[in-house]
Amino acid sequence: MASFTRLIRFLARDGRTYYGDALLPQGVSDIRAAKQARLITGDIFGSYTVTDQVADIRLLLSPLAPEDVRTVRCLGLNYEQHAREANMPIPTYPVLFYKPVTSLSGPTDPIPISRMAQEGEGLDYECELVAIIGKRCRDVSEDQALDYVLGYAVGNDVSHRDWQIKRGGGQWSLGKGFDGWAPFGPGIVSKDLIKDPQTLKISTKLNGKTVQESSTADMIFSVKKTIAFLSRGTTLLPGDVIWTGTPQGVGMGRKPQLWLKNGDVVEVELEKVGTCKNKVEFEASGPASKL
Amino acid sequence: MASFTRLIRFLARDGRTYYGDALLPQGVSDIRAAKQARLITGDIFGSYTVTDQVADIRLLLSPLAPEDVRTVRCLGLNYEQHAREANMPIPTYPVLFYKPVTSLSGPTDPIPISRMAQEGEGLDYECELVAIIGKRCRDVSEDQALDYVLGYAVGNDVSHRDWQIKRGGGQWSLGKGFDGWAPFGPGIVSKDLIKDPQTLKISTKLNGKTVQESSTADMIFSVKKTIAFLSRGTTLLPGDVIWTGTPQGVGMGRKPQLWLKNGDVVEVELEKVGTCKNKVEFEASGPASKL
Repeated sequence: MASFTRLIRFLARDGRTYYGDALLPQGVSDIRAAKQARLITGDIFGSYTVTDQVADIRLLLSPLAPEDVRTVRCLGLNYEQHAREANMPIPTYPVLFYKPVTSLSGPTDPIPISRMAQEGEGLDYECELVAIIGKRCRDVSEDQALDYVLGYAVGNDVSHRDWQIKRGGGQWSLGKGFDGWAPFGPGIVSKDLIKDPQTLKISTKLNGKTVQESSTADMIFSVKKTIAFLSRGTTLLPGDVIWTGTPQGVGMGRKPQLWLKNGDVVEVELEKVGTCKNKVEFEASGPASKL
Repeated sequence: MASFTRLIRFLARDGRTYYGDALLPQGVSDIRAAKQARLITGDIFGSYTVTDQVADIRLLLSPLAPEDVRTVRCLGLNYEQHAREANMPIPTYPVLFYKPVTSLSGPTDPIPISRMAQEGEGLDYECELVAIIGKRCRDVSEDQALDYVLGYAVGNDVSHRDWQIKRGGGQWSLGKGFDGWAPFGPGIVSKDLIKDPQTLKISTKLNGKTVQESSTADMIFSVKKTIAFLSRGTTLLPGDVIWTGTPQGVGMGRKPQLWLKNGDVVEVELEKVGTCKNKVEFEASGPASKL
């Protein structure tokens, strides 16, 4: 059975949603450039077939269907230069937080900003390498950790610094978990195409201007160290996704600080994977935070 | 269609696992006392039938199948007297963190303590009222929030204070998310039987001795306030579970501090719902935390 190279989930010309293996022109690596895909049938975490049937892509969706995702884990402060810009010590162990599955969205979806998230200040972007777990594991060794990975994507860990840091009692979840605040994609590049996830350029453009630019080589805890550590005493499931932290250059770390505004366009990019390009959309109605 | 009164998931005499409506003797309210249940067919979050078929209960399981659970949200510092014993200010907004779905277990399951969680000190118990979301909602008002609840259970938010507070970079997730560290049950009592979730006695016994004893009336953010707040800009899904915080009396707040040991038996109890009784079991092998 041939494995996929670049797994996508997409709306096809026929109006239906499929998993597929993206077909890219020679020399192009950004999955967002794909116009067609071979349809995949079966269970992407189990037995599946990349068929010969080719379909036209109308719209790329979140690369995993919501019901296929289990737990969304994220690391904070996992790039050395980002820990420095945040005035935080280099962590001894991975700093773990979570997002709900409802925060996940696709590579071109708008990022909705609810009324509550329009309060205070600190709407920020974070480009991240996202590792998708393909097989159940627990207490896995560092050497074997990458065997349990399905592949890699790029994502934007959208954050509201006031709700994350000042108004959440010190726990980051509240200011990072709103609907659509974890766009990722544009697809999942098989681990067979990315043998070493620690050598990839990663960056963010805000309205076309580069604001983050680094390499996954700057990670404090590599992907394999992270998976080995998180699996200690904790079972990782197929469909778990791990966001591995962001490099320096976030809005919070800049002088002056730089916050996202209504209508801004944020593009996160990972070498060999491609880009997610999402527009910030303030919602016009909804409840405020007052209790 | 008749609704369930006390939803359980159980292993029956025939060796199969079912959802059922627990049958309790007159005057008994602890679901753990149930010997039989009426079988439930269909989707417990949609259209289901409480049948006339009665089965013998061999073992009560986690009241929701793992695949039926979406996101596990938890509140910290949500009882006034607990916030005081923790020397923390009364929070202005709910303090939110998460557990992974793999932390959920049943009302009689052992609590496994991995090698990493045997390091340092601070293995602790927390009795909590657990609200189960039954219907999708977003931006729900406080007045309507309880309409979206399926029912209530009791749970133990098992915590390792060193990993939670000192070694997790200030984020609580790492020290609370190990496999089986969120036993809950013994079943889910319908919201029709608990019109007001803020009047229930809640307690913990450690090896038969009462160590926590309070009422859900001491909650800072009531269940309806919590659901309304958490749904702002965030969609809550059927199968989301919300752990609503613990009252005073945890091991960390006692003088001298009191930590769980191998073989200890912890019983958490909620009025009108019943008890979960779980034994602490240290694992003999597995990796240490060293990276």
